[in-house]
Amino acid sequence: MTIVDRAAATLEAIRTRSPRIHCITNDAAHVLTANMLLAIGALPSLTSAREEVGDFVRSADGLLINLGTLDPVRLSAIDVAVEAARQADVPWLLDPVFCDRSSTRARLAGELAGRRPTIVRANAREFEVLAQRLGVASPENFASRTGTVMVRSGAQDLITDGTRRALVDNGHGLMDRSTAIGCAGTAVMAAFAAIDGEPYEAAVSGMLAMGVAGEIAGKRSAGPGSFAVNLVDALYQLDGAQLRERARIS
Amino acid sequence: MTIVDRAAATLEAIRTRSPRIHCITNDAAHVLTANMLLAIGALPSLTSAREEVGDFVRSADGLLINLGTLDPVRLSAIDVAVEAARQADVPWLLDPVFCDRSSTRARLAGELAGRRPTIVRANAREFEVLAQRLGVASPENFASRTGTVMVRSGAQDLITDGTRRALVDNGHGLMDRSTAIGCAGTAVMAAFAAIDGEPYEAAVSGMLAMGVAGEIAGKRSAGPGSFAVNLVDALYQLDGAQLRERARIS
Amino acid sequence: MTIVDRAAATLEAIRTRSPRIHCITNDAAHVLTANMLLAIGALPSLTSAREEVGDFVRSADGLLINLGTLDPVRLSAIDVAVEAARQADVPWLLDPVFCDRSSTRARLAGELAGRRPTIVRANAREFEVLAQRLGVASPENFASRTGTVMVRSGAQDLITDGTRRALVDNGHGLMDRSTAIGCAGTAVMAAFAAIDGEPYEAAVSGMLAMGVAGEIAGKRSAGPGSFAVNLVDALYQLDGAQLRERARIS
Repeated sequence: MTIVDRAAATLEAIRTRSPRIHCITNDAAHVLTANMLLAIGALPSLTSAREEVGDFVRSADGLLINLGTLDPVRLSAIDVAVEAARQADVPWLLDPVFCDRSSTRARLAGELAGRRPTIVRANAREFEVLAQRLGVASPENFASRTGTVMVRSGAQDLITDGTRRALVDNGHGLMDRSTAIGCAGTAVMAAFAAIDGEPYEAAVSGMLAMGVAGEIAGKRSAGPGSFAVNLVDALYQLDGAQLRERARIS
Repeated sequence: MTIVDRAAATLEAIRTRSPRIHCITNDAAHVLTANMLLAIGALPSLTSAREEVGDFVRSADGLLINLGTLDPVRLSAIDVAVEAARQADVPWLLDPVFCDRSSTRARLAGELAGRRPTIVRANAREFEVLAQRLGVASPENFASRTGTVMVRSGAQDLITDGTRRALVDNGHGLMDRSTAIGCAGTAVMAAFAAIDGEPYEAAVSGMLAMGVAGEIAGKRSAGPGSFAVNLVDALYQLDGAQLRERARIS
Repeated sequence: MTIVDRAAATLEAIRTRSPRIHCITNDAAHVLTANMLLAIGALPSLTSAREEVGDFVRSADGLLINLGTLDPVRLSAIDVAVEAARQADVPWLLDPVFCDRSSTRARLAGELAGRRPTIVRANAREFEVLAQRLGVASPENFASRTGTVMVRSGAQDLITDGTRRALVDNGHGLMDRSTAIGCAGTAVMAAFAAIDGEPYEAAVSGMLAMGVAGEIAGKRSAGPGSFAVNLVDALYQLDGAQLRERARIS
């Protein structure tokens, strides 16, 4: 089975099995994250209250930790949530948003990366900070050292588990012009990781699905406002034929 | 006057009198709740700060308590807000979101249901938890015991005050595929309760308005992204003729 | 150079230089604020955590303080952020949302207005409260007394630095029917202030850009749902020709 066929099969299974993804994410990402998960066929939950986050995570199928808003409530919830995910064997993804902008975030991101997240997704600048912190140079070294799958997102997305590497060349320029699309995309990748037990294949599949949906939405949009709307519709309508037709993976 | 004529008259009055609905609601529902209230002709206010929530509620025409995000700030605000609403005779609605997912929420939802909310709106799973907590079986018993109007939402919405019962059969499948539509719909129902002093009639009218707007939006939409946009437009354009043409109430 | 030519030149420069605007704003405004800044060509950052807000503001090109959500986290961040902006000479804008609704806000708004914000933007009711607090009557007196540029927004926007006055007569009725458009518009004005070192010219340019984009979006929209989407697209596509064709400034 090619990776594109595998992505198509996982997409179908997400719709049948509706995995619930618990997301501790930033204020600006809540709505789009929930809507993109619902569009792809998954279920979102979003609470950050320390008292209940453990219950929510233990019964979830995946966990997303996004560092975009770091208030005391979320900081405290992150620790409980990650521990619950590890104990209950729930795959968890780390999106170290803006860890290149403040030393508090860089420290926290480095510490979390050391707790064996299933997948880490960062842009080039965030990756530099994380890599420096851990004393590694390449995404491959990062993946090997931390035992995670590293996704470095950009115009071309790089995915590696330390030995294999895939480049996904889908996507659209408008994806950077509307807030939280990357953040919500990591949640979509979590839905793929909730179904496909192999983190590397799940990461490639998730990034491919997002990239193809982004391309389809981009062609229909007059600007970033309609793009965000069309992206949700495109995820809702996404199917294996579209993935096969448009995939550019090397 | 039929209930549909009454709903149409209340809708007109919302637009003329612009009731302000204060909403303590979850992070993911803020924007859509505000936008649906504005679209129907009402005014939203959203603060959860304990120091000012009393001022905001006493001068409001309705109050919505939604349990979707339970951080310490909101928990503390809920108590002040409900007390202010009771003292100032402001109708208040309870939406016990996710009370089936954590024991903290179930306890709080049960406690709030005992403080005589004007209307409670819950889906089937949430209703089960609430009903068990209060030792009642049916929505009718729930309404009688708590002195509230109970709305159990679903493909078919059931509204009862303990003696009367209405079933509203409007709506669209995409309403479950975009986040916070139910939450925002409870706020729209609060606008009807702010104008129509009879909670049962207000609840039926509000659920009817939401259901009809949802149907109209659904027919125009390619997916949940465009649906959320079209729903706000449909509420803005909604009129008595559309309610009369589409109402399916039994 | 006319003010409209200046607005067009600043708009071009925003797109070339991508100023980052740090926004401490209300929950309901986060997403639209970020999206309107991205659409116009600027970059948003949104954290309210006290530990990192200083770092974020010192390296920003502009700061927006919006009082729409006043929880303890934001209250504490506002003080740090304003001090950082003053020390680093970053222009900062104050939007005293709802200061007419609670005495806590009125006091805070008055205190912040006394710390020499670059621009203050308020609607008529909010301006009344602020003006009374400072013992002045007209927007001109307010501007002179506080050393700020005062923008009183409404169907017609008034901008004054105490000696000059401009009236901007652009805009569309739907701008009041969708939440946070005014709040996000103040962020757009901050992007103009980040580029144009003259606060008065920046304020007129920013209000003009918002008003013209609002008109263009309004003509394309069936209601406030599609309006919010079209407004982001219109800001993305906005150019000098549109500003020159539509400007109504006196």
